[in-house]
Amino acid sequence: MAGRKIPEVYLDLLSQPCRAVHILLSHNKVPFTVRTVALRKGENKTPEFTRLNPMQKVPVLVDNGFVLTESVAILKYLVTKYSIPQHWYPSQAERRAKVDEYISWHHTNTRPHTAKVFLMEVLFPRMTGSAVDGVKLERALAELKETLDRLESMFLKRQPFLCGDDITLADLLAVCELMQPLGGDRDVLSDRPKLQQWRSRIQSALGESFDQSHSVLYKVRENFKSKL
Amino acid sequence: MAGRKIPEVYLDLLSQPCRAVHILLSHNKVPFTVRTVALRKGENKTPEFTRLNPMQKVPVLVDNGFVLTESVAILKYLVTKYSIPQHWYPSQAERRAKVDEYISWHHTNTRPHTAKVFLMEVLFPRMTGSAVDGVKLERALAELKETLDRLESMFLKRQPFLCGDDITLADLLAVCELMQPLGGDRDVLSDRPKLQQWRSRIQSALGESFDQSHSVLYKVRENFKSKL
Repeated sequence: MAGRKIPEVYLDLLSQPCRAVHILLSHNKVPFTVRTVALRKGENKTPEFTRLNPMQKVPVLVDNGFVLTESVAILKYLVTKYSIPQHWYPSQAERRAKVDEYISWHHTNTRPHTAKVFLMEVLFPRMTGSAVDGVKLERALAELKETLDRLESMFLKRQPFLCGDDITLADLLAVCELMQPLGGDRDVLSDRPKLQQWRSRIQSALGESFDQSHSVLYKVRENFKSKL
Repeated sequence: MAGRKIPEVYLDLLSQPCRAVHILLSHNKVPFTVRTVALRKGENKTPEFTRLNPMQKVPVLVDNGFVLTESVAILKYLVTKYSIPQHWYPSQAERRAKVDEYISWHHTNTRPHTAKVFLMEVLFPRMTGSAVDGVKLERALAELKETLDRLESMFLKRQPFLCGDDITLADLLAVCELMQPLGGDRDVLSDRPKLQQWRSRIQSALGESFDQSHSVLYKVRENFKSKL
């Protein structure tokens, strides 16, 4: 593809779905340009970025002039368009449908319920200067517990990965969310051996791309611990 | 496919995503069996149905033994598996990505913001016997206004349908949500000529399958009006 530019990804590695896109590309050695949009500096609210995504959200993909928002759409598009192994998003109808099923469920379960814990323990206190609201945090943790139970019983069951024998976009999206509360030094899988083993399998499968993409989150954790 | 059973869909036509599945199949003349799960009778909470979908939600597809939940996954699977015209979910990468982009956005915008209005005006008052909470309803309508603005400016723009020149799964999911508040005799598009024209284009494209799938909602509206 002469004259074709390599894809640009506008992202902030502190955002869970941005990490999923970053890992998919870097692990599969797809050349891409990172355009950092620092959320804490409000760089997602500049006129330039708002023209790219009126929702003022990351990630955004610009692929040779084609602009795409929404991490789930970006991930599926990248697997189709670039030389990324099919197991990430299988072409066989039933297997693909199971990945779509998890991802759809993810939007209203894993994502909101895990993100809320991080918001309450880390972001809100930092933004407002006030203490953690213990009652609301307990409620959020109870919702997360239900989601974790279902991740085990409905999806993982006795399989190595959420949708079967191979790692897929479902695992990538899920693990990036479940890592997030670590920024407040909370490992939400600490009493979940089955999900811990699943996370270890993902880390083994992804190698160093996993830790590289999570480096910013690890720094947030260190910072959080030093202030305790 | 000798011995292959026709697909069964567990649904309640008062559910927006169930109508989307019902319309896709009936409009495209795919033979299927309807298994009605009456939500108001709690039929989604029976042990039999819970075995099919532990989330106790409709729709559920059973296709020759293959069980699939989540309407978005079901719709995409049906287009791939049955003789449904490709324009519903294009195979070309960029066009498909735009449909995926809308559907992902839909989960956290059109769906919750439209459903909330119906819940507040129709379902909650009926279930609890108490009056509509005016303050909460105003807040929900303000959120919906923002979503409708974005449907016009980000997706529809100057196109006939949300993702381009042809009707897709995006339009189907969106219109089934936006019809829902009609159950409380509220047309959320009443002061939105651009979106009204879009809805008319969808109704023309779908013909009688649109009204057939919405017949239960129309009855709810009549019932609501008669009690005013």
